[in-house]
Amino acid sequence: MSHEPNVRPTLATAPPDSIITSSPRALPVDRATAAVRRVMDALMRTDHASAELDRVAAELDAVADHLDEHAGTIEQRLIEMWRGDGITRHDPVTGMENPIAPPLTLTGRADGSVDGVVILGLPYQGPPGYVHGGVAAQLLDHTFGVANGWAGSSGATAQLNVRYHRPTPLFVPLTVSARTESVSGSKINTAGDIRTADGTVCVSAEGLFIARMLPRPR
Amino acid sequence: MSHEPNVRPTLATAPPDSIITSSPRALPVDRATAAVRRVMDALMRTDHASAELDRVAAELDAVADHLDEHAGTIEQRLIEMWRGDGITRHDPVTGMENPIAPPLTLTGRADGSVDGVVILGLPYQGPPGYVHGGVAAQLLDHTFGVANGWAGSSGATAQLNVRYHRPTPLFVPLTVSARTESVSGSKINTAGDIRTADGTVCVSAEGLFIARMLPRPR
Repeated sequence: MSHEPNVRPTLATAPPDSIITSSPRALPVDRATAAVRRVMDALMRTDHASAELDRVAAELDAVADHLDEHAGTIEQRLIEMWRGDGITRHDPVTGMENPIAPPLTLTGRADGSVDGVVILGLPYQGPPGYVHGGVAAQLLDHTFGVANGWAGSSGATAQLNVRYHRPTPLFVPLTVSARTESVSGSKINTAGDIRTADGTVCVSAEGLFIARMLPRPR
Repeated sequence: MSHEPNVRPTLATAPPDSIITSSPRALPVDRATAAVRRVMDALMRTDHASAELDRVAAELDAVADHLDEHAGTIEQRLIEMWRGDGITRHDPVTGMENPIAPPLTLTGRADGSVDGVVILGLPYQGPPGYVHGGVAAQLLDHTFGVANGWAGSSGATAQLNVRYHRPTPLFVPLTVSARTESVSGSKINTAGDIRTADGTVCVSAEGLFIARMLPRPR
């Protein structure tokens, strides 16, 4: 069980090589979320004819019914999930509590950059056997936001320019990295890329962020 | 049960206002995938203290084990999922067989544009109560690909430039639309945006695509 600080770690306040996204905890919600990811991936690999998909659908619907019975209002849930000022656990890229997140885990470095390694399976596929271009854009956009936070200048994405150099393979370790390149007034310029293990750049991007965050619900 | 053609519909071959992405079928795999989506969404809304998340995790793991037992090799599965030349059913944006896909359903128009309406919930959240910038980029990238196919010039994304005009709200209908703007040799220029129901543009984008598709596995 990791100890996640209730303030966002920055290069100025946290030791270099800190993990700065959510880490798996020994809590039921993390186990349940990880299990949903397993179901998603296995459903996309399973044989439609031999797996008992009607029974699977009924069992999953029963689970959803149970979870629904214990759901509060969206307003309550938003307050709950954004409580405190620490690392988010529910975003669709790094969030341990979001089944859509692969999840990507990012480390903050002494030079101000952040990076993490992720392996993507069939749910993230675009062209046959390769990562969807939009998924690559999503990983980079989120990593840019985390990099800005680590360097001390958080902001909202105003512009994101993504270049696709070559297809990004599924099923192999990919390194996603980013860093704040410059800050001028409220404008933050960020850059980064996605590489395979041998250092080949598959996708690179630049982003313009504006230092103005939406308030957390209270 | 809809009838999906085994060739990609284009403006030249299909009637205007055709749905040109996968449609729900009365098949167990579609029911199972829809049930996973329900579980994902309900898990993010449920109360962590009162829902029996340990039991939920165990039940989901049992489902994943069953699906895993019936999974073939990745190579077999890729051949299976890319069979034929029709509409894909497994991509992470429109795919009825992909739990990550909201799913967005797109209609091809007589003027060559494509559009669809989608409502996004908590799994797609970025800032509090708003759509993740990377999710918006992913929706647009995919819609651009579908728009190019509809206009008759399919290609792979080479560049994607996304502008964020204002936060994109969760829980309300969003219209995603795109069209091929010009084709020059193998270069395809595409543009589109995401709007709320009153026509307000939240995100717009331009893309450069290269008319060269990766082969489907056989």
